[in-house]
Amino acid sequence: MIKKIDHLGIAVTDLQEAIEIYKNIGLEFVGTEVVDEQKVETAFFRVGESYFELLAATDPSSPIAKFIEKNGGRMHHIALAVDDVEAEIERLLGLGFDMIDKSPRRGAHGNLIAFMHPKATKGTLLEICCKEKPSV
Amino acid sequence: MIKKIDHLGIAVTDLQEAIEIYKNIGLEFVGTEVVDEQKVETAFFRVGESYFELLAATDPSSPIAKFIEKNGGRMHHIALAVDDVEAEIERLLGLGFDMIDKSPRRGAHGNLIAFMHPKATKGTLLEICCKEKPSV
Repeated sequence: MIKKIDHLGIAVTDLQEAIEIYKNIGLEFVGTEVVDEQKVETAFFRVGESYFELLAATDPSSPIAKFIEKNGGRMHHIALAVDDVEAEIERLLGLGFDMIDKSPRRGAHGNLIAFMHPKATKGTLLEICCKEKPSV
Repeated sequence: MIKKIDHLGIAVTDLQEAIEIYKNIGLEFVGTEVVDEQKVETAFFRVGESYFELLAATDPSSPIAKFIEKNGGRMHHIALAVDDVEAEIERLLGLGFDMIDKSPRRGAHGNLIAFMHPKATKGTLLEICCKEKPSV
């Protein structure tokens, strides 16, 4: 079940400059985090129940560097909060949707995430994510 | 003051097809509305406190038709809910941000809206919006 917009991923070329811009627009700055697996540095802003996640490449081989080369700085993905990423992947695959991630992987803040293929929505990149399940 | 993400505008080529896709993904379909001024038909889905707004052109001269011609179907804008669009326009202009709309205009659902220039954020199109003030 989709609960809310968890965050919006926005690709930026200059993270510090973008942080100042979004602070001035009036968003509440939360902090930054490097996600080595994706070769990105992220900056989070709280907006109601959701977040803006600015994404800057830390290496030319980062997916975000390649995205910016093709598209410029702009919205990259929409992340939807779900209760259980693994169950949601199964449900979406069962409906015939193409998933980039057929099993959950680790995102920022220790979230479990999975990307749908943009062709699933005819062009918009969606992520589903949830907090890691407690190991009980 | 920015209160929340009001909605995400997503440009689509085929509205009925896109409605079925987002229903299958699990978003709650609310309804459709034609906005003649923008030459678009919109479809709204509730996601937590926010909405997805699918946007399809009703005429080749629509800004959405031109956007799709250049970019394909994809995310078009992020709309932030504020208390008072007019006051927020003044605040943002005062900070040196470039606004497409220097005074509020009418959007879907009778909202008052204003777009920032995408160069204000280095590439991401932001809208600010609020419910119309009661005429007292």
